[in-house]
Amino acid sequence: MASSLLSTPSRTLAPAPAPAGLRGRATAQAHLPRAGLGLGVAPRRSRALSVRASVAIEKETPESEPPPTFLREDGQGAGSGSVRARFEAMIRRVQGEVCAALEEADGGGARFVEDVWSRPGGGGGISRVLQDGRVFEKAGVNVSVVYGVMPPDAYRAAKGEAGKNGAAAADGQKPGPVPFFAAGISSVLHPKNPFAPTLHFNYRYFETDAAKDAPGAPRQWWFGGGTDLTPSYIIEEDVKHFHSVQKQACDKFDPSFHPRFKKWCDDYFYIKHRNERRGLGGIFFDDLNDYDQEMLLNFATECADSVLPAYVPIIERRKDTPFNEEHKAWQQLRRGRYVEFNLVYDRGTTFGLKTGGRIESILVSLPLTARWEYDHKPEEGTEEWKLLDACINPKDWI
Amino acid sequence: MASSLLSTPSRTLAPAPAPAGLRGRATAQAHLPRAGLGLGVAPRRSRALSVRASVAIEKETPESEPPPTFLREDGQGAGSGSVRARFEAMIRRVQGEVCAALEEADGGGARFVEDVWSRPGGGGGISRVLQDGRVFEKAGVNVSVVYGVMPPDAYRAAKGEAGKNGAAAADGQKPGPVPFFAAGISSVLHPKNPFAPTLHFNYRYFETDAAKDAPGAPRQWWFGGGTDLTPSYIIEEDVKHFHSVQKQACDKFDPSFHPRFKKWCDDYFYIKHRNERRGLGGIFFDDLNDYDQEMLLNFATECADSVLPAYVPIIERRKDTPFNEEHKAWQQLRRGRYVEFNLVYDRGTTFGLKTGGRIESILVSLPLTARWEYDHKPEEGTEEWKLLDACINPKDWI
Repeated sequence: MASSLLSTPSRTLAPAPAPAGLRGRATAQAHLPRAGLGLGVAPRRSRALSVRASVAIEKETPESEPPPTFLREDGQGAGSGSVRARFEAMIRRVQGEVCAALEEADGGGARFVEDVWSRPGGGGGISRVLQDGRVFEKAGVNVSVVYGVMPPDAYRAAKGEAGKNGAAAADGQKPGPVPFFAAGISSVLHPKNPFAPTLHFNYRYFETDAAKDAPGAPRQWWFGGGTDLTPSYIIEEDVKHFHSVQKQACDKFDPSFHPRFKKWCDDYFYIKHRNERRGLGGIFFDDLNDYDQEMLLNFATECADSVLPAYVPIIERRKDTPFNEEHKAWQQLRRGRYVEFNLVYDRGTTFGLKTGGRIESILVSLPLTARWEYDHKPEEGTEEWKLLDACINPKDWI
Repeated sequence: MASSLLSTPSRTLAPAPAPAGLRGRATAQAHLPRAGLGLGVAPRRSRALSVRASVAIEKETPESEPPPTFLREDGQGAGSGSVRARFEAMIRRVQGEVCAALEEADGGGARFVEDVWSRPGGGGGISRVLQDGRVFEKAGVNVSVVYGVMPPDAYRAAKGEAGKNGAAAADGQKPGPVPFFAAGISSVLHPKNPFAPTLHFNYRYFETDAAKDAPGAPRQWWFGGGTDLTPSYIIEEDVKHFHSVQKQACDKFDPSFHPRFKKWCDDYFYIKHRNERRGLGGIFFDDLNDYDQEMLLNFATECADSVLPAYVPIIERRKDTPFNEEHKAWQQLRRGRYVEFNLVYDRGTTFGLKTGGRIESILVSLPLTARWEYDHKPEEGTEEWKLLDACINPKDWI
């Protein structure tokens, strides 16, 4: 349908300008691949990276079946022992395991439908969606592997040189675009029962290569991701279990990880205009590269492998809990908040929408149905009020 | 709750930075007041106006009843013959007439609930919402009168001096903030019946005063607004009637108005990531000041007065049309598109959300319920497909 992500977006359908929302402090490194991942992924805001140049993601081509790998054989880490290759293998394994476990939990014969796509410039993805199951209203589990280029300004900003004259600029040469690689798994699971919580998780790995006209520029890599829970009602046993599993995964690697990544999660999934979080948090991190690369690969793997033990026991306990129309209406109002967060704040979603990512993969994160009532306020002391209170004032659950 | 819109937003609760989405080509003149108006209002993009400064709208205070006027007695056009005063009187009259006609059309005893609010620095608004009526799922009709200040950079950009050194800057003096005034009526009407279309309209008047430290700076004023129709099914009789009434209103003033404002409407209500419009258009204009001011006041009045004759006959014809579950599901999917447009693209909404406007007034534009199905595509030739086709390829209906 369109040209490669590399260099010019000339053949992209209706190419959109880089969203203004990404200017300022947005991180190109963190954003660019997310259009491909499609589901609520988010950059750390502390790394100032100005993305003013036009970036349009090329249109995808449907494929009949998944290839053995989406990696390009370009000598840039496509070998089976490379971090790129091992990360791709991990996310594809996890996608398979999560989908199989969810189909089993759903128990109604509903199956994930698979859409495989590729991009002419290399890379692609596998979107799997289960809709209108017995337990799940909508469940999406996507993986993608994306190649692209970052504008040179963004790259210099990434290296902390924004506003300075870089080496290339100082000798009168404009630096070239910086190729990047990104791979990730991203998922949102919306159950039908108002007592069964929504789950989101996303894990991703990112590399930048040397700038094309500045071969001496260093390569960089980092990891990002997180898992968070969005219930409509607080069932303490469930929330404690969920956070405990996140803490166990973190504690295997570094005692500072859990407190740091829990707070990061509470800070990120924040609906500013409501002064509330979309849910009860979990863990979230981005730009993580100040540890051993092998250790972080293992950490991301551990986190992704913790999704099923964190979530499936909750679903098993709540999928058949009796509920009435008021419970359902409250769940629908909270789903409205989910939509507000994803469409207004989530940088992966908004960037993906505005640059021509695979729309259906991006918006599979939205619930099947949502509701907005004018000026709805739960009565103080009710179960609905308690949930809202916990979204306004994040708690330590364990 | 917080300090005045004027000068510093120091006491604003959780003040948000100016949304990055407004940088670049956004128009401060057009944006700032809309947070107060609250409903899908939109700037002309052709006037480059950089809004980098932090702008936070102060929090509102609930009032027990509407004041005779929201105008401040500051010698700035509060007199009864001023354009400010006549515009406020017009929008308040239209609010009353529209609400009365909609209650009658609803016919089920449902009434508009009124919320009056004011801001400590002057100005305020009246939000009226009818929810869960017999005919209307959700109908909001808001008026507001807002005072604020525009950053000097924005003001210079408004005068076409962005990037140049203005007079004040040339002599080493920083220009002061530019006070502005804005008043508007804004409304979204969502009927229950899938064959009865959603309507949005908004009319607004704007003034800037002399900059505080540059008394010689000229005052400016302009009008903006529009009325647009969003059906789920095309009933040609209805769509033609709607556009005919818009054309009649325009033709009374200038033969160029209708073609120009119809196209502007098609261009504005565009969901980029879908490559489709949210509905079947109508008229839309902004920054309008290159005609006689009296003429434009009369034109805005004519447009606002055309809302009921354009819409009520359609509602009367369609409010009891029989429908089935598939019709309703399609309406819900189109409502999802409405949510996508308002939360992702509508600059009034996104700016209002991010700067602390009255959230419930802003989001009353969202439908009561909406739906997102993965990869839904209507079958070619069906009535659903025809609607989608007309949203992708705007037509001349008359």
